[in-house]
Amino acid sequence: MKVLVLNAGSSSLKYQVIDMDNEQTLGKGLVEKIGTGLTGKIKQDCANGTIVIEQIIADHTEAFSLVMDALTDAEKGIISSMDEIGAIGHRVLHGGEDFNCSVVITPEVLEICDRNTVLGPLHMPANLGCIRSCMKLMPDKVNVAVFDTEFHTTMPDYAYMYAIKYEDYKQHRVRKYGFHGTSHKYVSSEAVKYLNKENSKIVTCHLGNGSSLAAVVNGKCVDTSMGLTPLEGMVMGTRSGDIDAAAVGFLAEQKGMSADAIITYLNKECGFKGIAGYSDCRDLTALCEKGDKRAQLAFNMFAYRIRKYIGSYVAAMGGLDCIVFTGGIGENSDYARELIMRGLEVFGVDFDFEKNAKAPRGTRQELHREGSKVKVVIIPTNEELVIARDAKALAEGK
Amino acid sequence: MKVLVLNAGSSSLKYQVIDMDNEQTLGKGLVEKIGTGLTGKIKQDCANGTIVIEQIIADHTEAFSLVMDALTDAEKGIISSMDEIGAIGHRVLHGGEDFNCSVVITPEVLEICDRNTVLGPLHMPANLGCIRSCMKLMPDKVNVAVFDTEFHTTMPDYAYMYAIKYEDYKQHRVRKYGFHGTSHKYVSSEAVKYLNKENSKIVTCHLGNGSSLAAVVNGKCVDTSMGLTPLEGMVMGTRSGDIDAAAVGFLAEQKGMSADAIITYLNKECGFKGIAGYSDCRDLTALCEKGDKRAQLAFNMFAYRIRKYIGSYVAAMGGLDCIVFTGGIGENSDYARELIMRGLEVFGVDFDFEKNAKAPRGTRQELHREGSKVKVVIIPTNEELVIARDAKALAEGK
Repeated sequence: MKVLVLNAGSSSLKYQVIDMDNEQTLGKGLVEKIGTGLTGKIKQDCANGTIVIEQIIADHTEAFSLVMDALTDAEKGIISSMDEIGAIGHRVLHGGEDFNCSVVITPEVLEICDRNTVLGPLHMPANLGCIRSCMKLMPDKVNVAVFDTEFHTTMPDYAYMYAIKYEDYKQHRVRKYGFHGTSHKYVSSEAVKYLNKENSKIVTCHLGNGSSLAAVVNGKCVDTSMGLTPLEGMVMGTRSGDIDAAAVGFLAEQKGMSADAIITYLNKECGFKGIAGYSDCRDLTALCEKGDKRAQLAFNMFAYRIRKYIGSYVAAMGGLDCIVFTGGIGENSDYARELIMRGLEVFGVDFDFEKNAKAPRGTRQELHREGSKVKVVIIPTNEELVIARDAKALAEGK
Repeated sequence: MKVLVLNAGSSSLKYQVIDMDNEQTLGKGLVEKIGTGLTGKIKQDCANGTIVIEQIIADHTEAFSLVMDALTDAEKGIISSMDEIGAIGHRVLHGGEDFNCSVVITPEVLEICDRNTVLGPLHMPANLGCIRSCMKLMPDKVNVAVFDTEFHTTMPDYAYMYAIKYEDYKQHRVRKYGFHGTSHKYVSSEAVKYLNKENSKIVTCHLGNGSSLAAVVNGKCVDTSMGLTPLEGMVMGTRSGDIDAAAVGFLAEQKGMSADAIITYLNKECGFKGIAGYSDCRDLTALCEKGDKRAQLAFNMFAYRIRKYIGSYVAAMGGLDCIVFTGGIGENSDYARELIMRGLEVFGVDFDFEKNAKAPRGTRQELHREGSKVKVVIIPTNEELVIARDAKALAEGK
């Protein structure tokens, strides 16, 4: 079976076709500037060649129609007909407390998702709009929703609850949900296979422009660093991560801004960008190497917070077998990994700094020394494959 | 030398006289309902007897004048004349970034403290009002300010910085400060003496209605759980502690309240009270013993977060020699200590649960088993003594 995986942002649509017989990607593409009034762009790559089309794209329905044309392009297409697609898997940001597994999308599912839009107002309208476009244009396909929060639904209550009024948790569903679930799920399941032991205790570090950590015991998530929203936790490209909630009011008053504007500021203007002026880890690394003090501070804050979270998860899990790095920074920045791993010897990590410095980018690697009690590995993430696997299983009625 | 220690709240004034020749408390008292228009009360205890006076008390100047009368009461007074007082030590909430040690109060110091009132708007006006009353009524005494933030000024930048715009840190001084400094300082210095080793790594747990942890390396604080304000960190009596900052905006919208009202709510209506309906640890313990699910959840959240912070500080310090319990809950609740210590074996703690259950309340105790790599001790706090020591040293020009 071939599965089409879709990941819709507010003005973008990423897609990929995966042949599930061998779990290989046949081709992928990206549509940009949808519904912006600007000239949009679709770019698709596969073994048959590259397609680039530039035009104004009104909405996700038009975008998906362009995607169907590109997918089945006679010369450079990925497939010869949409009939080859056995299922469509959609990345959906938020499952709220309603979904603890992937589901075939029905009108009832869409209704529940609509109610959860309040929990993810930036992403859910695009996710759901894209699903509705697909169902309209290809009414016969099985559409499957794979939730970014699903992997974290196994957290115990004392880990996901905030200490607010219990009634506000029940009524407004204010609690920790966690995100990047498909990535944590993929790399932790690979790490469980790699460790090949009972009672595995793993910390997965998904580090990119957005970053989160998860504590995974025997393949189940027991804690994660993102919260009600993706703001909580790590120092990220433009997000502050953890900060005294009272700072929202204090900053609002001092800067003469509304609290909502401060929360947007904490999401868009802070993190690496706020401290050092650049959100991209590569720019920051270059600055660090030139001795830039602010870039070094930003990196030190980033690494220190990750170290502290790893320590907190050792306490939460009562042990540690493996640390996994994944995501753009986790897979590619030996500089970031080195900073993070300095000082974790106390947990039984014997990190091989030389091996780390020489690790080829974006490939699976062991980074610990022989005999290290705790293994440290790079596992390139593959969120699309997780989505495709669930879509295939549900389409086959498993 | 005898030192008078003053701790002024917005409508209260706690005081104590300490004989610094032997560091013994000679007597102490509390003035309540100052400036409320209600009938206030002064209650003082010492070896000579108890004084109780009830009357309307207009302001801190009148309160301090009553305190002077009670201190020197011919029959039940603590001292025979105010001339015996060699220095007055004031607890001051916030030193901002201006004070990294205690100081003799001068007009310049008061001016800087006035500028820092914005950082502690609930406590600083009372602290400073009390100081001004003292200076007016007893112009010849040495007044010393001891800051609740001072002990934490040794934190490295990567620990105290939030990942916000660097300019907002500089201009608005938004960073982690930490509180309960005199308590963490006292018990950590006692623990350093107790351990009697080089390179000591200690986590001090000040657990009471307000709670905070500190990581202390060789007697210096390297991290702490409270932040810009005392809201951050632990689950407390009425404070939520850590929560996604975006929850402030979300709750404001869902509950139809202003962001400021939500921050007051997070300080006054959450924590134990929010989850289980009672803010006092003793009420909660009684409920837990009856099998109350919400009380058990609140306690599990409280203990889990402390365990995670201890783990994060093991990472921050690169090791752990000793965990210190202090404060009302830390000194008196064997139930809380037991819940916290379950699952910390991974760090080399061999906790003696029986010894813990039988530990007499409010006394210094060892709670680990013979041979435990990490020591666990109760050290009753003595914030007044820290203040008195600094006041004496500065009055003597040391």
